[in-house]
Amino acid sequence: MRKVHGIFAPIATAFDASGEIDYGTYAENVKTFGATKLAGLVILGSNGEFTMLSHEEKVKLVKAARENLPKEKMVIAGTGCESFKETLELTKECAAAGAEVALVVTPNYYKRDMNEAALEKFFTMLADASPIPVMLYNMPSNSGINIPSSLTIKLAAHPNITGIKDSGGNIVQISEVLAKAPEGFSVFAGSGSYLLPTLLLGGLGGTLAVANVVPDYCAEIQENFEKGDLEKARKMQLALLPLNAAVTSRFGIGGMKAAMDLVGYKGGLPRLPILPASDETRKTIAGILKDLDIKTV
Amino acid sequence: MRKVHGIFAPIATAFDASGEIDYGTYAENVKTFGATKLAGLVILGSNGEFTMLSHEEKVKLVKAARENLPKEKMVIAGTGCESFKETLELTKECAAAGAEVALVVTPNYYKRDMNEAALEKFFTMLADASPIPVMLYNMPSNSGINIPSSLTIKLAAHPNITGIKDSGGNIVQISEVLAKAPEGFSVFAGSGSYLLPTLLLGGLGGTLAVANVVPDYCAEIQENFEKGDLEKARKMQLALLPLNAAVTSRFGIGGMKAAMDLVGYKGGLPRLPILPASDETRKTIAGILKDLDIKTV
Amino acid sequence: MRKVHGIFAPIATAFDASGEIDYGTYAENVKTFGATKLAGLVILGSNGEFTMLSHEEKVKLVKAARENLPKEKMVIAGTGCESFKETLELTKECAAAGAEVALVVTPNYYKRDMNEAALEKFFTMLADASPIPVMLYNMPSNSGINIPSSLTIKLAAHPNITGIKDSGGNIVQISEVLAKAPEGFSVFAGSGSYLLPTLLLGGLGGTLAVANVVPDYCAEIQENFEKGDLEKARKMQLALLPLNAAVTSRFGIGGMKAAMDLVGYKGGLPRLPILPASDETRKTIAGILKDLDIKTV
Amino acid sequence: MRKVHGIFAPIATAFDASGEIDYGTYAENVKTFGATKLAGLVILGSNGEFTMLSHEEKVKLVKAARENLPKEKMVIAGTGCESFKETLELTKECAAAGAEVALVVTPNYYKRDMNEAALEKFFTMLADASPIPVMLYNMPSNSGINIPSSLTIKLAAHPNITGIKDSGGNIVQISEVLAKAPEGFSVFAGSGSYLLPTLLLGGLGGTLAVANVVPDYCAEIQENFEKGDLEKARKMQLALLPLNAAVTSRFGIGGMKAAMDLVGYKGGLPRLPILPASDETRKTIAGILKDLDIKTV
Repeated sequence: MRKVHGIFAPIATAFDASGEIDYGTYAENVKTFGATKLAGLVILGSNGEFTMLSHEEKVKLVKAARENLPKEKMVIAGTGCESFKETLELTKECAAAGAEVALVVTPNYYKRDMNEAALEKFFTMLADASPIPVMLYNMPSNSGINIPSSLTIKLAAHPNITGIKDSGGNIVQISEVLAKAPEGFSVFAGSGSYLLPTLLLGGLGGTLAVANVVPDYCAEIQENFEKGDLEKARKMQLALLPLNAAVTSRFGIGGMKAAMDLVGYKGGLPRLPILPASDETRKTIAGILKDLDIKTV
Repeated sequence: MRKVHGIFAPIATAFDASGEIDYGTYAENVKTFGATKLAGLVILGSNGEFTMLSHEEKVKLVKAARENLPKEKMVIAGTGCESFKETLELTKECAAAGAEVALVVTPNYYKRDMNEAALEKFFTMLADASPIPVMLYNMPSNSGINIPSSLTIKLAAHPNITGIKDSGGNIVQISEVLAKAPEGFSVFAGSGSYLLPTLLLGGLGGTLAVANVVPDYCAEIQENFEKGDLEKARKMQLALLPLNAAVTSRFGIGGMKAAMDLVGYKGGLPRLPILPASDETRKTIAGILKDLDIKTV
Repeated sequence: MRKVHGIFAPIATAFDASGEIDYGTYAENVKTFGATKLAGLVILGSNGEFTMLSHEEKVKLVKAARENLPKEKMVIAGTGCESFKETLELTKECAAAGAEVALVVTPNYYKRDMNEAALEKFFTMLADASPIPVMLYNMPSNSGINIPSSLTIKLAAHPNITGIKDSGGNIVQISEVLAKAPEGFSVFAGSGSYLLPTLLLGGLGGTLAVANVVPDYCAEIQENFEKGDLEKARKMQLALLPLNAAVTSRFGIGGMKAAMDLVGYKGGLPRLPILPASDETRKTIAGILKDLDIKTV
Repeated sequence: MRKVHGIFAPIATAFDASGEIDYGTYAENVKTFGATKLAGLVILGSNGEFTMLSHEEKVKLVKAARENLPKEKMVIAGTGCESFKETLELTKECAAAGAEVALVVTPNYYKRDMNEAALEKFFTMLADASPIPVMLYNMPSNSGINIPSSLTIKLAAHPNITGIKDSGGNIVQISEVLAKAPEGFSVFAGSGSYLLPTLLLGGLGGTLAVANVVPDYCAEIQENFEKGDLEKARKMQLALLPLNAAVTSRFGIGGMKAAMDLVGYKGGLPRLPILPASDETRKTIAGILKDLDIKTV
């Protein structure tokens, strides 16, 4: 298995005005990202609007990504569903379609039933049966559920669980995992706003919404850190914060897609009920991109 | 359209040991409930594990319910999905399968995108296009999203939005809706723990997990209230609290299914990753049923 | 001991422009309230800005209240402090100054140390040593701490603990206490927004910020309920909601003081850093009072 | 003014069995810390149980600290109270008693009134009038209030506001302040669990409960970071996590005092209602200290 390392974009799924997937635009985006410094793509991530997609659409998107991305770039697929049954089925189909790693969010509607015992059983059964390595996906702001560090550490011992993407932003929890997880377990920042602290503490990369907008900039934070230029990495990290907030906490999916449009990628429309960014939001984001010296189209 | 009034059970979906739906047991439960004082059933509610079911399974369950329930009992179907597209498709199919009302939860994975504008658009577009009346479903403890009273009041003016099941338990919010919503808009308690206060303030009924266990008891709280025996209603309401907690906040879906088994209905297994109740939990629930003078099998 | 029953106003403390207590205005307010249908006053409640007052000021305010209020009206004093030591000292001094009951909030700065064991010990030691009965004060929106119903029920067995003012608004928690607490234990609504449901379930009254503005209106909700005119009580309860929100969750202490000024009572200024209501807020509140047919000055 | 830089212990206040301050033990602790690598002490911090102390006790503790600490070590006093009036009075008295900097927590009981406008006015008026520099104190887990980065950045422009101790642990918020605050504004980690990431991003030190237990260890994390030995700093940071949790989130004030006792400092008893650590907690902490190779007595 290839090491999960570096910066990944959780690629957006472009929809057209009728609400259908625009596979042509999507393939174009995949090719564009293939020419950047990204280590690979996450298909069906939160920023890919995976809960808005049917089972069939999901598999098709993974297949299209693999076909349009150079071999040296890794394809990770978000295969988490509410039931174990569907999660396993989708994981197998995505593996067959070319995914090398399954990124699996915690089932989350039944919050009171998703206690540690249930989550441990879910991830263990899945890792036992999955043809590809499983990466845990902690996404409390969307799921309302947090994977505590103690559970991550326990699951990290499973030979087919390869890492965690932690989008909770709790640097102490990330530290606790890094203190105890086995060598080679990939801890990923789930947002660009705490990429550098995660790397400093021992993390191996990140899956960042903002990498859909400025992929090379994100990859260069890690490059600078890894070659020892901490001061350069620090300055780039701090300067990235307003753009990162704009495409996540501040303006959501609509904001991220608008930012992609502004830099010349193709965000396309979100699927309803997610609304596209307003003109005012677009202007605000354009101003933030300008402050960061990013050219807009 | 029939008035949405009275007590409904959000019927459990029985699974067998292989994780498949046990349609025979399910039909038996439907028939059993048909002989109680319940006004009807909610199919595909949270207690029906709707997020664990495929689109096809959902429609089949609605059909089976309608076929096995006497005509004078109403069938409500939970048709909310994350995307508008799938929600509308499912609503139409469930209507065709016999559902009289669609109970629609807020889409909820993209919490920051599900602002009031997005929710208003979602429910309005759905009500415009749905062949059957829409009932709003506010379920913050599972969804992480609350429908504020101001939005409910706005939506209550739509001719095809017939009521709200509010499972948030915020009696002030429920009061605010009752103060301003038009006559005939059905406000339902979403849990047995605050049924009587909801009725007192003007609510018309409830969809209660605990009605899967003690349907007639729940219906009699409303009967007593409506015939003016407040003291009897009050005593029954207060006495119900421990059982209600056991099948909701305390022991979740597994607890509710165990309680059904204990009184002679057929809870069956939950679908993984939801775990069945432990033996200890079953004993606790048996004790609570005994305290309430409910016969167990 | 007199039964704690009926509607109480948590009287505002009027400050002058220099930030000092305006005792003259305060005494006037006390006398005014003495001529209403209120059962008594709570001095040093949250609406009395008790955390803004020195120990000495607190005792002086209780004394002034007792001197200016007719004997048949009860004086309750808010004597909760962070340390047990100061809480006991203040309780004794307020009792000597004329308080009949001590309303005691949970200590709350050290949230993780204020577990059930600590709270149980605190209230038990206080009730053991206090010369006057203790009323528990649950105020989670300010304190960040909730007294669970299980603890209230345990403490209700203490002969010198007479009731609870629950400002949490969780009607299920209030119900759980009413289901199990001994006869005569006074459960009070802590806000006007859920007064009627609390009474219906067995509560004996309320301490309501909004009673600083419309004392007789609040008392009449209880009067109507107690004489069996549920429909009148229900209509008054629902109509009260916007004013209640304006003087609590919506505009805070500044809003409550502005509303008092508008109806001809004397709110005075809050103590910094609490800010007085803006002109816009005053206008909004005036409109709400008009909608409720309350005359403004 | 001296630069606020390095590691500070928020010194515990030792109480005796009767609940009175044990000034002798306290002075001993001050002297002991004076011989460590700490940059100074915070008197009246959250770990000093400041809300449990009277105004007079507070001033006395500051005086005793200054008298017993070498001149080259800085004395910071926690002077935040609920009212502006008392905060200013206490700040002046603590300055006269020898405090060089006032650490001022947000007033917090009236959470809904403590909006950004109120907090900005409070800190600005205080900084205008204070004879010593003001350091903001963000402590959301105790106060229930967070100072957003936008407000900190605004306040950082005031010539008499010198820094912020951020105990919220949100590394993104800390980053946002470091990205925009003026050169020389001291951003301090408020807990040992995220000291190194704070330093990496540009922070100048920390005020750490755990520095009451292992002062030199904490100071050496910063030493190693500043001399460029990132790997040593990283290892020490990760190894510190279990002890840090034990004296903060896991076992609270009682746990911290027990840990001090275990390493030969003098924690003493907390003031009621805070409870001392149980024997079982003491054993757990002793085990954690052993894992970290810290000698216990």
